[in-house]
Amino acid sequence: MISHFLSASELSKNDIEKLLFAARAFSTFMRKGENIGLLRGKTVVNMFFENSTRTRVSFELATRRLGGNVINFATSTSSVQKGETLIDTARNIEAMKPDCLVVRHSSAGSPATLARSVAVPVINAGDGFHQHPTQGLLDAFTIQEKLGQVEGKRVVILGDIAHSRVARSDIAILRKLGASVAVCGPPTLLPPSPEALGVEHSYRMEELLPSADVVIALRIQTERQNRMQIPSVQEYSKIWGLNQQRSNLLKPQAIILHPGPVNRGVELDPEVADGPRSVILDQVSNGILVRMAVLASVCSREELGQWLVEQNNFGGENA
Amino acid sequence: MISHFLSASELSKNDIEKLLFAARAFSTFMRKGENIGLLRGKTVVNMFFENSTRTRVSFELATRRLGGNVINFATSTSSVQKGETLIDTARNIEAMKPDCLVVRHSSAGSPATLARSVAVPVINAGDGFHQHPTQGLLDAFTIQEKLGQVEGKRVVILGDIAHSRVARSDIAILRKLGASVAVCGPPTLLPPSPEALGVEHSYRMEELLPSADVVIALRIQTERQNRMQIPSVQEYSKIWGLNQQRSNLLKPQAIILHPGPVNRGVELDPEVADGPRSVILDQVSNGILVRMAVLASVCSREELGQWLVEQNNFGGENA
Amino acid sequence: MISHFLSASELSKNDIEKLLFAARAFSTFMRKGENIGLLRGKTVVNMFFENSTRTRVSFELATRRLGGNVINFATSTSSVQKGETLIDTARNIEAMKPDCLVVRHSSAGSPATLARSVAVPVINAGDGFHQHPTQGLLDAFTIQEKLGQVEGKRVVILGDIAHSRVARSDIAILRKLGASVAVCGPPTLLPPSPEALGVEHSYRMEELLPSADVVIALRIQTERQNRMQIPSVQEYSKIWGLNQQRSNLLKPQAIILHPGPVNRGVELDPEVADGPRSVILDQVSNGILVRMAVLASVCSREELGQWLVEQNNFGGENA
Repeated sequence: MISHFLSASELSKNDIEKLLFAARAFSTFMRKGENIGLLRGKTVVNMFFENSTRTRVSFELATRRLGGNVINFATSTSSVQKGETLIDTARNIEAMKPDCLVVRHSSAGSPATLARSVAVPVINAGDGFHQHPTQGLLDAFTIQEKLGQVEGKRVVILGDIAHSRVARSDIAILRKLGASVAVCGPPTLLPPSPEALGVEHSYRMEELLPSADVVIALRIQTERQNRMQIPSVQEYSKIWGLNQQRSNLLKPQAIILHPGPVNRGVELDPEVADGPRSVILDQVSNGILVRMAVLASVCSREELGQWLVEQNNFGGENA
Repeated sequence: MISHFLSASELSKNDIEKLLFAARAFSTFMRKGENIGLLRGKTVVNMFFENSTRTRVSFELATRRLGGNVINFATSTSSVQKGETLIDTARNIEAMKPDCLVVRHSSAGSPATLARSVAVPVINAGDGFHQHPTQGLLDAFTIQEKLGQVEGKRVVILGDIAHSRVARSDIAILRKLGASVAVCGPPTLLPPSPEALGVEHSYRMEELLPSADVVIALRIQTERQNRMQIPSVQEYSKIWGLNQQRSNLLKPQAIILHPGPVNRGVELDPEVADGPRSVILDQVSNGILVRMAVLASVCSREELGQWLVEQNNFGGENA
Repeated sequence: MISHFLSASELSKNDIEKLLFAARAFSTFMRKGENIGLLRGKTVVNMFFENSTRTRVSFELATRRLGGNVINFATSTSSVQKGETLIDTARNIEAMKPDCLVVRHSSAGSPATLARSVAVPVINAGDGFHQHPTQGLLDAFTIQEKLGQVEGKRVVILGDIAHSRVARSDIAILRKLGASVAVCGPPTLLPPSPEALGVEHSYRMEELLPSADVVIALRIQTERQNRMQIPSVQEYSKIWGLNQQRSNLLKPQAIILHPGPVNRGVELDPEVADGPRSVILDQVSNGILVRMAVLASVCSREELGQWLVEQNNFGGENA
């Protein structure tokens, strides 16, 4: 059976904990400067039908740090432009016998469609408004790293919840790990019934901030303005932007996350983005570790299990 | 003397058989999961002046599976845009001392022009209407794999013969291996005298299909419609498309090839493209094997000979 | 302390000589076909905010020949397009823990700005009108290779001096090595006071050519014509182009350099560009060697020192 990695909703608490454990083990191990060959001789194809240098480079580095090869495949130069269907493209790539496809697409569900069509493991690197499960994992990893654990923490997600694959993935993963989640944003950018996602909601940030251990500020897409979902970027920033004054409402040890790239002065003021609560660059570093864990678990599940056992036996400090 | 790989017409029957033999040996060997280091320490530069992700990725994987390094060089970002001549560009790349140039260009003869200008082996990865010799090899390999041999087989090539580098390369290679070839398509898309290519022709598919062992359906370029060479894509598909009913005229064991990407519903109906006669995805897999053979033969001829001998001595089953 | 490589002006004579020495040692060593692992396990990120396949491929090959990994990052697909600041982009890449950033940017000073913002070595691969220090090094290397030494040589730089990062880098490096430099071009394309750069100048090529050991012809940017800085490309070529007749004024052993890509028939006539004095393709080959030296010196300074000592002890002929 092929193991794909498509959606945070499909992961059990145990799956998530295993992946975070592996990511921590990689972190410890790499600090010693040693190589991890779990993807040696394997080829990962990055199929990015939507531009995202940041995520592409993160997956590329994760693959290389495990000793694997990377082939980059960008839409702009592919036969997708010649009218080929997504599935035909994927079947062609499959016929070249890669070991894993990392897929980014602007349409929700595309990676899952591919996974049903090919006999190669598929990793979802973000699909439309649907899911971005490695982002959910790296946020969980970062919270665990900074606050010791996710369980029992109060997480507030700010901004465009309705159109955010990050929010959707974060909610699924953080709730499974025992966090309580609340969302906050303008009524036009909240989903119709947030309760269905198992989260509280409020239209007033000030109500939620004092109890928060973690704030995840989402990137606002400026085209929302033209679609009448926000009156203007300036207005949005005034009411929904996290500035220094508002962040003073937080508990002393509370942290601020953002999936990047930040619109400085819109959803986060520069002094907040660069301030002591911000863990945005830690998220970027941790992204590589959790993607290594996902790649190894999808392409080399048994070898990963074996490797983790060896680390523990020979004095790895993975706790 | 530098050995280039420019045109199917230049290859002798013996050259072709040696390359197919090497491709089969690689296939057998890789199934055992072992490495082939014939390009270790060598650098192949992919110079693609015309977009083709499929072919580029195939050459890239072929190079890596032989242990070589790949540098990708795409026109859109190159100094070709600054008005540099093709030969100046190639001489500059040559001065960087790569081991091989893989060249794709929209002008017939460009790879041959380059080969005369640089002291580096050049592989033609498709030039205008002229040649696409690795496609010819992979089609021969696929026929051999599926039907046991090429010799004595009846091959029918359907579609736009006049503007097809695939047709030209297929005809040269398949005839040298002893196949009889017939072409079929609208009069505007057949060359002026098909007999000069050593092939029969007909304007009625139904005449040729019953005797065919192999059908190679070519991709129709939809811009032909604007140039008055076909009345409309719908019309073309009705008269020249290979649908289920027409493919029922074929012998039971006959196979269908297509160089990809397929225009579904135009030159091939989906049920034919995905049906049991279709070997389209095998062609893609085999493309990597024959490109490995070409790369090794061009960059490491002696080591390849040595390696093939070793395989035979130590129980390789290369027949 | 992080060691960056930002500007030819910052380099001491001793720095330059060490880098040229290392480049020569690499050249000798590679001729023996052996590997140099000074960047093994290291990752270099090429951040090219301005297109330049030639320079990008040169750095990519230099990195690979030292055993390092390369990640390419092009503006057109990056979040720079989503409005992210340059520094945010660089900090994000920094958070992924690469070992070196190679930066090309159309704005003077961008690499220096980045170097102040990140804790990763930055190499300037060309910034606006400002600097292109590896070009200066490769020109010095080429002169040394062809004429034995730079000291005491007379170098004439022809063309658009005012807007040339190549001229600026060449002047700084060649003067430190003891060359005397003169510049020559139309008044609109010379800097206001060439003497401030420590060089002589003339508006008549014929005055300078007879005493020159080296001529560096610069590329003319054809948009200068629209900005009224040259009357027309034809006019420019007639007065400022180096043709066969003018090159006959040179001493017998004098050599001609050009940073490429050449506008044939504009700043250099084809018979001069391809003639016996031209060392343009040697410059391209040498570019890889000096970039290897810079990369090793920036990323692996101690290992480079060690390696150079070993070469000398075990019979390397680095003189």
